[in-house]
Amino acid sequence: MCASYFDNKRNDPATFDLFIRKLPPNRSYYIFAGLEQALLYLKNLRFSAEQIDYLTAHGFKEDFLNYLRRFKFSGEVWAVPEGTVVFPDEPLIRVTAPIIEAQLVESFLLNTVNLQTMIATKASRVVHAAQGKTVIEFGLRRTHGTDAGMKAARCSYIGGCSGTSSVLAGMKYGIPVFGTMAHSFVMFFDNEVEAFKAFAKTFPKASTLLIDTYDNIKGAKNAVAIAKTLEKKGFRLSGVRIDSGDLVEISKKVRQILDKNGLDYVKIFASGDLDEYKIEDLLRRDAKIDSFGVGTRMSTSEDRPYVDIIYKLCEKMGGFGEFVPTMKLSQGKITLPARKQVYRVKDRNGIFAKDIIALHDEKAEGTPLLIKVMEKGKIVHKQPSLEQIRDNGLQNLSKLPEKCRQLRKAPRYPVALSPNLKKILKELSSELKKIEGSS
Amino acid sequence: MCASYFDNKRNDPATFDLFIRKLPPNRSYYIFAGLEQALLYLKNLRFSAEQIDYLTAHGFKEDFLNYLRRFKFSGEVWAVPEGTVVFPDEPLIRVTAPIIEAQLVESFLLNTVNLQTMIATKASRVVHAAQGKTVIEFGLRRTHGTDAGMKAARCSYIGGCSGTSSVLAGMKYGIPVFGTMAHSFVMFFDNEVEAFKAFAKTFPKASTLLIDTYDNIKGAKNAVAIAKTLEKKGFRLSGVRIDSGDLVEISKKVRQILDKNGLDYVKIFASGDLDEYKIEDLLRRDAKIDSFGVGTRMSTSEDRPYVDIIYKLCEKMGGFGEFVPTMKLSQGKITLPARKQVYRVKDRNGIFAKDIIALHDEKAEGTPLLIKVMEKGKIVHKQPSLEQIRDNGLQNLSKLPEKCRQLRKAPRYPVALSPNLKKILKELSSELKKIEGSS
Repeated sequence: MCASYFDNKRNDPATFDLFIRKLPPNRSYYIFAGLEQALLYLKNLRFSAEQIDYLTAHGFKEDFLNYLRRFKFSGEVWAVPEGTVVFPDEPLIRVTAPIIEAQLVESFLLNTVNLQTMIATKASRVVHAAQGKTVIEFGLRRTHGTDAGMKAARCSYIGGCSGTSSVLAGMKYGIPVFGTMAHSFVMFFDNEVEAFKAFAKTFPKASTLLIDTYDNIKGAKNAVAIAKTLEKKGFRLSGVRIDSGDLVEISKKVRQILDKNGLDYVKIFASGDLDEYKIEDLLRRDAKIDSFGVGTRMSTSEDRPYVDIIYKLCEKMGGFGEFVPTMKLSQGKITLPARKQVYRVKDRNGIFAKDIIALHDEKAEGTPLLIKVMEKGKIVHKQPSLEQIRDNGLQNLSKLPEKCRQLRKAPRYPVALSPNLKKILKELSSELKKIEGSS
Repeated sequence: MCASYFDNKRNDPATFDLFIRKLPPNRSYYIFAGLEQALLYLKNLRFSAEQIDYLTAHGFKEDFLNYLRRFKFSGEVWAVPEGTVVFPDEPLIRVTAPIIEAQLVESFLLNTVNLQTMIATKASRVVHAAQGKTVIEFGLRRTHGTDAGMKAARCSYIGGCSGTSSVLAGMKYGIPVFGTMAHSFVMFFDNEVEAFKAFAKTFPKASTLLIDTYDNIKGAKNAVAIAKTLEKKGFRLSGVRIDSGDLVEISKKVRQILDKNGLDYVKIFASGDLDEYKIEDLLRRDAKIDSFGVGTRMSTSEDRPYVDIIYKLCEKMGGFGEFVPTMKLSQGKITLPARKQVYRVKDRNGIFAKDIIALHDEKAEGTPLLIKVMEKGKIVHKQPSLEQIRDNGLQNLSKLPEKCRQLRKAPRYPVALSPNLKKILKELSSELKKIEGSS
């Protein structure tokens, strides 16, 4: 496409919206994430000599390749801050740039926002289900590759998790790192007690013992013995972990064993195929669990492993050098034309009441969500720290109507179109139908 | 764990199996992929100064960090070749190394094999459903991050796809690259005809025109006009693409329009939320589609976005310096002890009849699947090219009983345990229950 734009001497500016098309049955909101990586990409995108050589060998023309050799994104970008609760049709990133630049960046922008928004949202559901109990991200081994491993840690933290088991993500993003032991650790020693002793020797202040390698109950009793030995040395066993079986029944029995031995301070940590639905069920059935290690199902967003997110042209240059709105009419896939802003209206208690998608320069009630983050290819808005993004996420979630946080069948949050946007939408779609329709 | 092994002066060798625990309802086999990246990781894994600093700041002891500074994987690895059809419980990668080395590499090995095996398998199902029609991987924008984007292209190719829309993956892996145009291209020009003309001008020999931006039928007629103009210049329009609406009805109408105008050579390319189930349905309803662009649902393995893949200790050093088998007894998560080999038995027609999991040095009927790929940390087996891996995959699939390729409710392929493995399993599990059980 870019080669053809270039070939046809068309590189006038255009505006694209990155937005979510629709919600799946089991999501009522999304938490926007991925802007930081999107902006770094826009700032740093260049074509290497190796890449140009590859394109040369595939028949692209020299003048286009010369253009790519000098390529540098020069556009203007508006975006919603990371951690913001967002809804379908709302522009999340709005790119205005010469069409070749705006088009070239589509795949990466969608790729990283899709992944990160998906994980932040899924994590917020898991954390919500955990009702204030700690959730740690455990998904590295099952995330889709290494980039997803890192971003799952980052975005589950944005969504409210308390840490990750990935040491590399901890280092890169400053996220708290948590670890317990694996079954292999227990199996490697002559017996379970030896394994527990060895671990407690190394980490007397921070041992969580995995008690289900052979038998949960025997494991709990072995952990009691270790805790007693630690007490004599002035330490406290942090916790025990259960990773299999009926977590409700086992956690109750294990809690009893611990409490009977005066170890009410020892936490019970549970893991094993958990997600928001299972955690909700465990707590409803009064499982005695203090912390959850959640991996696969959260870090792959198992029940919905993608966001219906797209990047569509909404504005192009008209015949007189002015921007004119554009849209597509594809069946079931109509898009909103023109450069837009999103306004969020709160009720008197500060709770989100409704959003309005309006034209960029149209006055509407509420607070605008999109802010200018890039101008002439330079980042013009100081990026928040990950802690600030996480705080923004938690604040946003606290202002979302409680019913919108239901795990199933949450009602739709109201998003309206402004009068002027509606007018343009109506006029343009009937005009396009006249020109491009088949009748 | 590694710090504790080190602290307890325990770094004797052990063997781990990487294997799939169980099949989900809608999979009857997996195509193993990801070995190339696993071996490169094992070969190149080192700890950087920055990483050591991070660990220092987090309280790890100097002697352990010195060990990590010199870290280099020195183990022996056996593995199944990429592209091989595999089943639950079969060791796919078998690592024998000092326990700290073997343990440290767990997360990456699982991460990359999980992703790549998942995608190769899903792609093989999509290609099977397409009944010989071309399938192109289109998933970059919805894959979970950039690593998944690259591996989705690589592994969908292994699974039988004919190419990818990712130019970078094309360059890195030598995969054929296919592209069409986006709706934005059509929208950017004054009208659809102008957009088609511009594209055909740049790519007279390879234009696939997207005809559903405004109206499929009008789009098809516009494409006819372009094809006629191309014919006059001695070129042929490659195809038209439909991305929305009822693909059966529309493809039939479009085929009619093309044929009526003597354009039976113009292919119809379809895309839009496709997967194996939808393609099966489209072809059953006689859709006139020649090629499929499959993205989101294939490249995220939407109906099963993870493989139940694990990495478990099966063998450790006994008291007399000899390897002894080990296993875990966790409820519903029992593992197979000892160093093992997998044998594949074929029937007289060369079709796979059954697999036998045996002890490594046990004689069994059939052909062994695991080969030695690494010795003392060095790769000792020449890695096949991607084309060879793809050929191996296609060959393997052709030898799988046809009923095992059903998209739904495929019967289970028989995998047996050898007599000696059964014996060890029985003896060891009762011994462990005696020692570690709660009664």
